[in-house]
Amino acid sequence: MTRTTPDEVGVIACVGAGVIGGGWAAYFLAHGYRVRAWDPAPDAEQRLRHLVDAAWPALTELGLAEGADLANLSVHRDLAEALRGAQFVQESAPEDLELKRRLLAGIDDLCAPEVVISSSTSGYPMTDLQTLCPHPERTVVGHPFNPPYLIPLVEVVGGKQTSADTVAWAAAFFTVAGKSVITLDAEVPGFIANRLQEALWREALHMIEAGEATVEQIDRSITDGPGLRWPVQGPMLTFHLAGGHGGMAHMLDHFGPSLLSPWTRLAAPELTPELRDAVVAGCVAEAGGRSIDDLVAERDRGVIALLRALGRA
Amino acid sequence: MTRTTPDEVGVIACVGAGVIGGGWAAYFLAHGYRVRAWDPAPDAEQRLRHLVDAAWPALTELGLAEGADLANLSVHRDLAEALRGAQFVQESAPEDLELKRRLLAGIDDLCAPEVVISSSTSGYPMTDLQTLCPHPERTVVGHPFNPPYLIPLVEVVGGKQTSADTVAWAAAFFTVAGKSVITLDAEVPGFIANRLQEALWREALHMIEAGEATVEQIDRSITDGPGLRWPVQGPMLTFHLAGGHGGMAHMLDHFGPSLLSPWTRLAAPELTPELRDAVVAGCVAEAGGRSIDDLVAERDRGVIALLRALGRA
Repeated sequence: MTRTTPDEVGVIACVGAGVIGGGWAAYFLAHGYRVRAWDPAPDAEQRLRHLVDAAWPALTELGLAEGADLANLSVHRDLAEALRGAQFVQESAPEDLELKRRLLAGIDDLCAPEVVISSSTSGYPMTDLQTLCPHPERTVVGHPFNPPYLIPLVEVVGGKQTSADTVAWAAAFFTVAGKSVITLDAEVPGFIANRLQEALWREALHMIEAGEATVEQIDRSITDGPGLRWPVQGPMLTFHLAGGHGGMAHMLDHFGPSLLSPWTRLAAPELTPELRDAVVAGCVAEAGGRSIDDLVAERDRGVIALLRALGRA
Repeated sequence: MTRTTPDEVGVIACVGAGVIGGGWAAYFLAHGYRVRAWDPAPDAEQRLRHLVDAAWPALTELGLAEGADLANLSVHRDLAEALRGAQFVQESAPEDLELKRRLLAGIDDLCAPEVVISSSTSGYPMTDLQTLCPHPERTVVGHPFNPPYLIPLVEVVGGKQTSADTVAWAAAFFTVAGKSVITLDAEVPGFIANRLQEALWREALHMIEAGEATVEQIDRSITDGPGLRWPVQGPMLTFHLAGGHGGMAHMLDHFGPSLLSPWTRLAAPELTPELRDAVVAGCVAEAGGRSIDDLVAERDRGVIALLRALGRA
C-alpha cells in the first residue's frame, strides 16, 4: 500500500476519451508513459486513436520523451481492466455531476487503494465529486486546459475529504510530467483560470447580446490587443507596467477611480488600502527584483517573438 | 480645406508625451512619419527622447520604414508650434475628463480645420470629450494598447458630433500606418478590448481580496493557460474548438447550463435562442470555411510557435 513516488509512475489510466481525455492520453504517451484508456462509447477506440494521431505531429515537433511510442496505448472495453496496474488515474468524463460522482466511486472501488485519482473537471469542487467514493482521501482535481497536450497549466485542488498527501503527490506528479502546476489552497468554483476567462467570456456574450460588438471584433480585440501581452507576463504584471516607473502602486493610485467606471458589467471590488497593498506587494514579489525597465524590455522581446512566431511582424 | 488623404500624411502631432504618447511617437517615427511633439512637463523632451530611444531597438528589429529616422522628431514648448503643419493629431494626455476636454478644444482651435484630431483615451466617450471643441466633427477616439509601438490594435469610434467622414478617415489612416483597426458603431464605455480585459481584471481583484488566489497564481494561470490560446484565435474561436467537431453550437448547447454556475462574480446573460444563434453564426462567419480540424491544426501550430518563441517548448 505504499504509493509509487511521482517520478516512478510509468502506467496511467485515462478514463474518458473525448477531446480532453484523448488530449491527456496523447500528452502522457509523448512523455513516455504507458496509457490504458477506457470510455463507454462504442466507437471509443477509433475516436481516441484519431485524437492521439492528430496530436502526435505537434508532440513530435515539441520533442518526444525517450521511449515515447503510440504502441504504449491500450484501449479497454472494461474499466477494471483499464485500471489494472495503473499508478495514476486521470478521469475526463463529461461535465455531469452525477455521472462523475458514480464514475469516480467506481474507479475508487476498482483501483489499488494507494493510487491517486485525479479529475479533469472544469468546475466541480472535488468535495461534491468525492461523495460516493469509498476512499475519497485519494481523489483530487487536476484541471487541464484544452488542448492538454500543448497547454502547460494544471490546477490542482483537493476536496474536504482529500488528504494533504494526495494534493502534494498530484502536484509533484504533474510537475514531473512536465506540467505547470498551480495548487489552490481553497476550493473556488471554476478554480482560477476558468473564473478569469469566464468573466471575459460573459462580458463578451453580454456585448454580443447588446449589439455592442461582433464575434469577430471580440476575437480581434484580443488577438491584436491585450492577448499579445498575456502569454508574456499575465494580466497583473501587464498592469504593473501600465503605471510607468511607478508600477502597480502608481497604476492603482492613479487609475483606481476608473475602477468605478461602467467598463464592464462586473462590479468592481472596493479598492481598500489592504487590497491595494496586497496587489502591489504581489506584483513586486512576482517581479522578483526586476525593474520596470527590465520588465518592459522582457515584455517587448516577448511580444516581438509572438508577433514573429505568428507571422504578424 | 481639403483633407490630406490617409496615405499622404507625412507629419503628425503627438500631444502628450507620457508612456502612451511617447509610444505613439516612436511608432510613427519608425513608420517614416515626421513627429512634432508637445507636453507641458518641464522635462518633457528628455522623457520623450528616453521613451523613443528605449522603443527604437524593438522597432528596428521589426523593420523600420523607408526614411524612418529619430531626427524626424521635434519637441516643442508651444502647442501651436507643435501643431504647425501637422496633417493628423494624436492626443495622449492623462485620463482626466476636464483636462482632455480643454486640451482637445485648444488643439481644435489651433489646428488647420481639416485635420483629424484623435484621442488615445482609454475609456471616455468622444461625445463627452468634444463638448468644448469649436469643430467637434473632426474629433475621434483612436484608442491604442500599451505599448502602442508593438500592439497592433486601435479602436476607432466617434462621438455624437463626429462626422462619419472623420471616423472613416481615421480608420483608413491607422490602417495605412500599419495598425489593426476595429471601428465601433456605438460608443460603449471602455470600448471592446478594455471591457473584456477589465472584466478579467476585476474578477482577479475580487479573487485577491477574497484570498482565493495570489497575484502570481493569477498571472501564471493566464501565461501558462488560456493566455497561450488567445493571441492565436481569440476567446470566441477558442470556445468554438471546445465543442469538438460540433463547434460553438455544441459548446453552447452542451455547456450552456454551466453559464449559470458561480464561476465568476459577473452574472451571465440569459442564453436566449437569439444570443445562441448570433454567437454560433459569428463563429462560423469568422471561421470562414475553415473546418474544426483546420482550426485545431492552426491553433496547435500557433501555440507551438508561441511556446517556442517564449522559450517554453
